[in-house]
Amino acid sequence: MLAAARAAFAERGFDGATIRGIATAAGVDPALVHHYFGSKDQLFLAAIEAPADPADLLPAVLAGGRDRLGESVVRLLLTVWDGPMQPAALALVRSAVGNEWGAKLLREFLVTQVLRRVVGTLGLPPHEAEVRGALVASQLVGLVMGRYVLRVEPLASAGPDWLVATIGPTVQRYLTGDVDLPD
Amino acid sequence: MLAAARAAFAERGFDGATIRGIATAAGVDPALVHHYFGSKDQLFLAAIEAPADPADLLPAVLAGGRDRLGESVVRLLLTVWDGPMQPAALALVRSAVGNEWGAKLLREFLVTQVLRRVVGTLGLPPHEAEVRGALVASQLVGLVMGRYVLRVEPLASAGPDWLVATIGPTVQRYLTGDVDLPD
Repeated sequence: MLAAARAAFAERGFDGATIRGIATAAGVDPALVHHYFGSKDQLFLAAIEAPADPADLLPAVLAGGRDRLGESVVRLLLTVWDGPMQPAALALVRSAVGNEWGAKLLREFLVTQVLRRVVGTLGLPPHEAEVRGALVASQLVGLVMGRYVLRVEPLASAGPDWLVATIGPTVQRYLTGDVDLPD
Repeated sequence: MLAAARAAFAERGFDGATIRGIATAAGVDPALVHHYFGSKDQLFLAAIEAPADPADLLPAVLAGGRDRLGESVVRLLLTVWDGPMQPAALALVRSAVGNEWGAKLLREFLVTQVLRRVVGTLGLPPHEAEVRGALVASQLVGLVMGRYVLRVEPLASAGPDWLVATIGPTVQRYLTGDVDLPD
């Protein structure tokens, strides 16, 4: 089931894949998939071996309010990555860079499970939400790469407070600041 | 010689490796290394199969002046990556994420060949230059990952002008804006 799910999510994207289609591909009844995994979100997180369910972490991000959303997102990212989930998170990134499927699955995870949830709280039109989410992704993925993969100093050994104070404003500008939309 | 150079640059970093040491490890005379590769910079670029020599591209980045340095850096990055060098550049990133040596070599390339040159034009104290360079790296690497590896929309299909106008200000803030230094 998980192999069929990975294939479906990579080929059709999160929105395009269905539990019914995945069940058919795996040769099982859709009810069995629901029984084991619950929702499509849960199945997706299991399929990509996500280190955490972003839905569980969302309240911590929103608690600081709209004007501190950028800082809160950076702080949460660092909390997850500096903790015991780091190896699983790193495996996701390695898989994304190593092969086309991995890239599609990490993109779907970022877009549908992380960015949509965070940007979704701002009540923006869909296109603007997509644009702002992608800009946020460009900074967060770069922070992850710089701190945990390439280990560029001082990103690698700096404490979270400095990173939150320095990179948080960038994420905040992308979320709520003055940003033109592309054509 | 290139294998010995890769090993030396990954183990000791660009600054720590010497042409003499690399020649000894390869069992050749240092004069032969100089003859084939010229400077240590050139040997390093050959060893990591760099798609371009950043020194050649620097004048284009500086031509816009200090206040447009952020935009110029983003524009140059897009020019290189949207052109024929993309496969070679992508190979560097894949190698960096795939193994520890690749990560060290890409970090050394970024820090010593790209960031030091760009930030070096600002006349900053060494620690501040390192900090600002690392912050710039966090945004540029994220842009590369978002546009070329994960292909997050609209980063993947947007024209360069929009990316320059939107992400350039972030790079500019990291280069010349109000940024605290970590302890």
